[in-house]
Amino acid sequence: MSLPPATRKPTRAATARTPSARAMQKGQQTKQAIVEAALGLAAQIGLEGLSIGVLAEVTQMSKSGVFAHFGSREELQISVIREYFHRFEQEVFYPALQEPAGLPRVQALFANWMKRVAVELQSGCIFISGAVEFDDREGPVRDALAHSVQTWLRALYRAVVLAKQCGHLDADTDEQQMAFEIHGLILALHYEARFLKSPDSIERANQGFANILRRYGARLSA
Amino acid sequence: MSLPPATRKPTRAATARTPSARAMQKGQQTKQAIVEAALGLAAQIGLEGLSIGVLAEVTQMSKSGVFAHFGSREELQISVIREYFHRFEQEVFYPALQEPAGLPRVQALFANWMKRVAVELQSGCIFISGAVEFDDREGPVRDALAHSVQTWLRALYRAVVLAKQCGHLDADTDEQQMAFEIHGLILALHYEARFLKSPDSIERANQGFANILRRYGARLSA
Repeated sequence: MSLPPATRKPTRAATARTPSARAMQKGQQTKQAIVEAALGLAAQIGLEGLSIGVLAEVTQMSKSGVFAHFGSREELQISVIREYFHRFEQEVFYPALQEPAGLPRVQALFANWMKRVAVELQSGCIFISGAVEFDDREGPVRDALAHSVQTWLRALYRAVVLAKQCGHLDADTDEQQMAFEIHGLILALHYEARFLKSPDSIERANQGFANILRRYGARLSA
Repeated sequence: MSLPPATRKPTRAATARTPSARAMQKGQQTKQAIVEAALGLAAQIGLEGLSIGVLAEVTQMSKSGVFAHFGSREELQISVIREYFHRFEQEVFYPALQEPAGLPRVQALFANWMKRVAVELQSGCIFISGAVEFDDREGPVRDALAHSVQTWLRALYRAVVLAKQCGHLDADTDEQQMAFEIHGLILALHYEARFLKSPDSIERANQGFANILRRYGARLSA
């Protein structure tokens, strides 16, 4: 059975326009390389420092080459936020899911978060610097960043809810409150270690976490 | 008795060069007006957004006029930090000194700090945004900012030390640790209320402070 010419023609045209799997893969690799360069830059100079032109310079590509992958500065910034969040999930969230639900998972989430912040004391953290850059703006970049942070804080909150359900925390634990207090420790660590260069901030954050656990009656047996 | 010409001449010259008290006062007022405009701008666009040119535009002065008062962009930025710190002291620190040493003073410091942050949820906080802008830089602006924040955190720490000495806190209270945890609450409030627009952050910070006080055995009788 042969298809009528009217149907065939667009099919051939579509084939010609569709890049081969190989070309698509190469395009993806290039895009990924640009995002990686942008991620490194954003940690240093901020998301607002990123532009198609700066990325072209850093990756030694033409501006139109970079533009072909992103189309706009905003899209580039959002790609960086997505990649940052993806890595955050890989390093902080997923490994903690290997721990049993309850207190062990909450502890793993905090420990992994601490590990990541300790590395970022050198490079900077987009979730923190980005919040300052975009806290009085509207638009898709701000929304993407706020959405990423909220997703993470909600995951932390859910782990606390589960720990309470497991009987690992006091029955009257306010889970949102506990998550808020943990977030505060991470922010204080980042501020005091990175900006003030206080040498004992990591111990302070760990001690603060131990204090919070005690406050909410943390125990492994229900 | 007449002075020899050699001595007289420089004296007359010095008099000519010294501005009258009235002119000096006017100069001070102009400088103060520029600093105020710069302070408002810095809260919105960051300390790094400040320049002699931008300030000239905002104050409708000539660039050389603004330059005459500051001499450099760095000096302008440092003047803004000093003025910010001065106001912070006036609003947060000095009123708390009216309270008796011990727990009442620690509570007043936190309450005044919260009041100020609540206002800054609209305008932004130079201590927080500046930390992100200058956390990977060296130089006199960073130093001035870090010095201001450290002075304030040390004042908070000293108030906690006094509270322990008054017997208002447990004898084994780690004062640095308590100050670190309080700082974390303020940072979490600023982040979650200003960037994430979480509606209940002020209550969370107040509840967190109550939890910290309980953790360190706060009581008014020794």
